[in-house]
Amino acid sequence: MNNYADRLLEAVNKKGNPCIVGLDPRLGGMPRFAISKGGAPEESVRSSIFEYHKCIIDAVHDLVPGVKLQSAFYEQYGIGGIAAMQDTIKYSKENGMVVIIDAKRGDIASTAEAYANAFLGESEVMGERAPVFDVDCITVSPYLGMDSIEPFIRACMKYGKGIFVLVKTSNPGSSDIQNAKMADGRELYARVAEMINSYSEKLVGERYGYSSVGAVVGATFPEEARRIRKMLPRSIFLVPGYGSQGGTAADAAECFNEDGLGAVVNASRSVTYSLSSPELERKDAMAEIREKARLMIADVNSALERKAGGDKK
Amino acid sequence: MNNYADRLLEAVNKKGNPCIVGLDPRLGGMPRFAISKGGAPEESVRSSIFEYHKCIIDAVHDLVPGVKLQSAFYEQYGIGGIAAMQDTIKYSKENGMVVIIDAKRGDIASTAEAYANAFLGESEVMGERAPVFDVDCITVSPYLGMDSIEPFIRACMKYGKGIFVLVKTSNPGSSDIQNAKMADGRELYARVAEMINSYSEKLVGERYGYSSVGAVVGATFPEEARRIRKMLPRSIFLVPGYGSQGGTAADAAECFNEDGLGAVVNASRSVTYSLSSPELERKDAMAEIREKARLMIADVNSALERKAGGDKK
Repeated sequence: MNNYADRLLEAVNKKGNPCIVGLDPRLGGMPRFAISKGGAPEESVRSSIFEYHKCIIDAVHDLVPGVKLQSAFYEQYGIGGIAAMQDTIKYSKENGMVVIIDAKRGDIASTAEAYANAFLGESEVMGERAPVFDVDCITVSPYLGMDSIEPFIRACMKYGKGIFVLVKTSNPGSSDIQNAKMADGRELYARVAEMINSYSEKLVGERYGYSSVGAVVGATFPEEARRIRKMLPRSIFLVPGYGSQGGTAADAAECFNEDGLGAVVNASRSVTYSLSSPELERKDAMAEIREKARLMIADVNSALERKAGGDKK
Repeated sequence: MNNYADRLLEAVNKKGNPCIVGLDPRLGGMPRFAISKGGAPEESVRSSIFEYHKCIIDAVHDLVPGVKLQSAFYEQYGIGGIAAMQDTIKYSKENGMVVIIDAKRGDIASTAEAYANAFLGESEVMGERAPVFDVDCITVSPYLGMDSIEPFIRACMKYGKGIFVLVKTSNPGSSDIQNAKMADGRELYARVAEMINSYSEKLVGERYGYSSVGAVVGATFPEEARRIRKMLPRSIFLVPGYGSQGGTAADAAECFNEDGLGAVVNASRSVTYSLSSPELERKDAMAEIREKARLMIADVNSALERKAGGDKK
């Protein structure tokens, strides 16, 4: 399938849930078995992060449709961290997972094109074009306007990739700008949603009828989620804020359409960086992560069932 | 001097101009002498970019106060590109230049902290805290609100660094969101400017009276620049859009205060990636880049003189 929305929803269907697991490295929160000391710092950072992320992917790849990598957490560890990001992307794909990079990039057209090349497309190096980080989908910030999003749209069309544009984010301060009241009575996020909608038609998948131009809508703002859901019927929502940030499964359920599709829900820390002890062995760490992923899946799926029941009443 | 604004303006004073040179790698636009073929692709990308950027820095370090690195252009070349970014930052600092990274990062608080660690502060690796990319200043996107900017502010206070928050960017589409008309009659960028102003007091330098919390204001929108200048009297503006993007020196001059300070003007492609031939030898490439930097300096300085003359009338 060469349409990202179709690929993502096919994976959701196959796994029977819309849960995404976050892979956001925190060296201080890793089990000891993964930490490799000695050697060059760059190499030991790279191999420690990758060792633990392999453990996470081994634990959940048959349960959930995809993973989300938060770029900042890799960048904070410099070259070694970014190399571990590359390793983690590759291993996730080898294990059949959809890979989303949460990088919130946004820049003027020629620069946005460089970002699109880096994450979705190809760059020309010494006369040859080749993929770089090559994920399935990237989060994009809309502050610079439509011409900053178009290079990503072109890359989506050319390479069968997707984007999630920030509409209403999960943090408390998101209201400062996103809920700014406009002259037409709406809030700013509504203008962003409108902008996205104008693109979404171009990238609708034949199989599921959803667009590869999606939106980030936090689980922490269910009221806004309901409104945005109506404004963007064909967009898939990436829903952060479930778990550690306080959003419940019922809140996240507001991001779905009545067909039970239309969103994926992410949890990072609460599933992958909350082991009971740093002394756990690999198989015990795997078992804990797997159990937490199962709990999240059960929680989200039952909220969706309750919502479907309620919608029918 | 442990205040970024003071350090930047001291450099502007010492060099006698507010011009910043952009170092945005395009392998296809480099002179042949810099390109190293053979060996691992990562290594040849890294050494080619660094070789040419050393040539640029050697050519301009005694002329201009600083350099700006656009992160996207390094990221598009993967690990090798990002390693070249690190090399370029280090060499620029060794040559006494103020280093700005144009990365337009913006995320929820815990993630913004990871970005602040990566670019301005320190990260903890295997029990030891150490700087990572360690630039003087980073550009930051405000779409996620004040709590997404605060971690950068804290890093500025702790490490003597600075930020430029996107207010009105240089691209044509910047009006889509930034000029959205609000219920109070103002445009959205005015709200962002207000947000910045509430922070700027905390980071004012003793020497020049400017704040390390600055703003990005494009040379391509002189009318907005005049308005924002009045709203943010103590903020230094980073002014892109001069040169290749069509902003003139007179437009850029609108970003300055009457004291002749308050802004730095960036040019990238038109100075550093527009050599007359890829066959130039190193010393001839240096001479061309130096000449272009001199022309930019003369152009910007004479616009500032004209403005000072006009202001006095």
